[in-house]
Amino acid sequence: MNLDDLPIRDDLRGKSPYGAPQIEVPVLLNTNENPYPPSKSLVDDLAEEVRRTAGGLNRYPDRDALELRADLADFLGHGLRAEQVWAANGSNEVLQQILQAFGGHGRTALGFEPSYSMHPIITGGTSTEWVDGLREDDFTLDAARAVAAVERHRPDIVFLTSPNNPTGTALPLETIRRVLAAAPGMVVVDEAYAEFRREGVPSALSLLPEHPRLIVTRTMSKAFAMAGTRLGYLAAHPAVVEALLLVRLPYHLSTLTQTAARVALRHREELLGTVDALRRSRDETVTWLRAQGLTVADSDANFVLFGRFPDRRAVWEKLLERGVLIREVGPPEWLRVSIGTDEEMAAFRAALEGVL
Amino acid sequence: MNLDDLPIRDDLRGKSPYGAPQIEVPVLLNTNENPYPPSKSLVDDLAEEVRRTAGGLNRYPDRDALELRADLADFLGHGLRAEQVWAANGSNEVLQQILQAFGGHGRTALGFEPSYSMHPIITGGTSTEWVDGLREDDFTLDAARAVAAVERHRPDIVFLTSPNNPTGTALPLETIRRVLAAAPGMVVVDEAYAEFRREGVPSALSLLPEHPRLIVTRTMSKAFAMAGTRLGYLAAHPAVVEALLLVRLPYHLSTLTQTAARVALRHREELLGTVDALRRSRDETVTWLRAQGLTVADSDANFVLFGRFPDRRAVWEKLLERGVLIREVGPPEWLRVSIGTDEEMAAFRAALEGVL
Repeated sequence: MNLDDLPIRDDLRGKSPYGAPQIEVPVLLNTNENPYPPSKSLVDDLAEEVRRTAGGLNRYPDRDALELRADLADFLGHGLRAEQVWAANGSNEVLQQILQAFGGHGRTALGFEPSYSMHPIITGGTSTEWVDGLREDDFTLDAARAVAAVERHRPDIVFLTSPNNPTGTALPLETIRRVLAAAPGMVVVDEAYAEFRREGVPSALSLLPEHPRLIVTRTMSKAFAMAGTRLGYLAAHPAVVEALLLVRLPYHLSTLTQTAARVALRHREELLGTVDALRRSRDETVTWLRAQGLTVADSDANFVLFGRFPDRRAVWEKLLERGVLIREVGPPEWLRVSIGTDEEMAAFRAALEGVL
Repeated sequence: MNLDDLPIRDDLRGKSPYGAPQIEVPVLLNTNENPYPPSKSLVDDLAEEVRRTAGGLNRYPDRDALELRADLADFLGHGLRAEQVWAANGSNEVLQQILQAFGGHGRTALGFEPSYSMHPIITGGTSTEWVDGLREDDFTLDAARAVAAVERHRPDIVFLTSPNNPTGTALPLETIRRVLAAAPGMVVVDEAYAEFRREGVPSALSLLPEHPRLIVTRTMSKAFAMAGTRLGYLAAHPAVVEALLLVRLPYHLSTLTQTAARVALRHREELLGTVDALRRSRDETVTWLRAQGLTVADSDANFVLFGRFPDRRAVWEKLLERGVLIREVGPPEWLRVSIGTDEEMAAFRAALEGVL
């Protein structure tokens, strides 16, 4: 017997599991992780906190993660309170809960591709119909055309991403405002990479007070250097959080996850202390790639999309042969490199020079 | 604005979040946790293991949790291998993934109520239709009637539970075999409480070699005394695991969860060492409740369902006033008490004597 013999959902037939290859190579620049590991001080603090709480692991965790949500609200600022914040196992689970509450069979979600490839996958996983609104050739979003797409499709959920993955493109607040004004349902602004945005680029968090149907999602996997902890979260109107309580699996967030996320928030200065260096390196990488004669998308994130390669797979493979793993993702002819340490970026540049 | 003003899914309107009240009282006998906390030795081992792995928390976890799945397969025995085992954040997430792969809009899941109340909730959360097959008055499942329900409804998924929550009722293998023979789709045997079953009561794991559409789910939240870790798992044909890879959210299981579950498995003798005492106390509780003139369901689990109380809410509240929290769940007129420590059970008996 194999997979084809099983009565799986029809729309899953012939599909492959999502995910970047997990390959052991010297230079990992493929999943937009923060390359700087947590300090010994953070590790010691976490181990001690685990020692302190592990004696209660026979009991279920706080189902509503109230202390963690208060800490996240405090971190986000903007006057947010715990009841406006929700957390789950990675922003993927946050997004799935949003789709379970506001999407489902007979409902529609609109996104603007190329964008985070999990948006349509999670949408399909909840039987919601996915509609692609498309971006301009330079990966920006034209506000008038975005509004027109919203008015044409009347989606129950609109996905905006700022900065956008895999292109790095941030959105002006005015575009988000206009989409909010036109949208009949919920508007999700995925800000997984928000901490990396350039000076003067705003966050949609500032729009929350005026817009009860706005949801801003964040993660501790990127700038916060906690990908292994799997903690995604959102800020929204308290009623939105109430809606998510109707679909969240009870006790979805373990005691250890809640503990680790709170320790990380206490060490926020250390963890976010690497962001400036990564932004600088990102800007240098953009400049260097352009100096090689390549086409490069402007980036407000910790990765850079560059091209164009008629055979991008060949370039990706030749970099891998040289010990550098980047990501074959996004529009055809483009590749995405995550910003690593200075040594890793030097290795990337040397490898790419060898390939070109 | 409040929840009613939001465009939530129609079938969520008017619903309340699932979950037992999380109330701070001296005696917690409401969520079937193992009352014995992990030893200092386990806690120390876990803290050290976290210290060893936390330096890599800036990286995503192993997406397929291969080492943990190998350890779980080894623990389950029955010749199982890692590729036949899958794990997620609690058996709730395991069940949700099963429904996402094999259920969905236009498909049907059949269960036999009263049973685990999350089965119909997770079913609805994936837009799958729930059909209730009903049990006999003594909460057993009549094999011929179960088969008749399967043949009438032709469900895509059948939920069996052994031992059943909240009744404690275990299933003979013959009943499971007959349902498997009749079922056109997948058959899930939820064995969350399997470790507590009485001498001679079998596990459905032994049926796996003959039945590629059988899924047996387990959890580390009950006998394993790791409710705070949130680790559910299943054993099935490798193709079933492949199907779940199509719907699982990537990196759903954190590094810390994988680490903690593996540490707990290394300490399995200690953790499962409390099971015999809990089974003995369970049997004594059944005997004592019957001696009080109450009706009590036979139990193969770490809880006992007893009644019948025309006003069960009043009994539940009066116990709570006396510092004992049990669960108001299952069929009307019945209450469920989890098996706690000997001291907690003495407090329960004293409180109930006061109420009756």
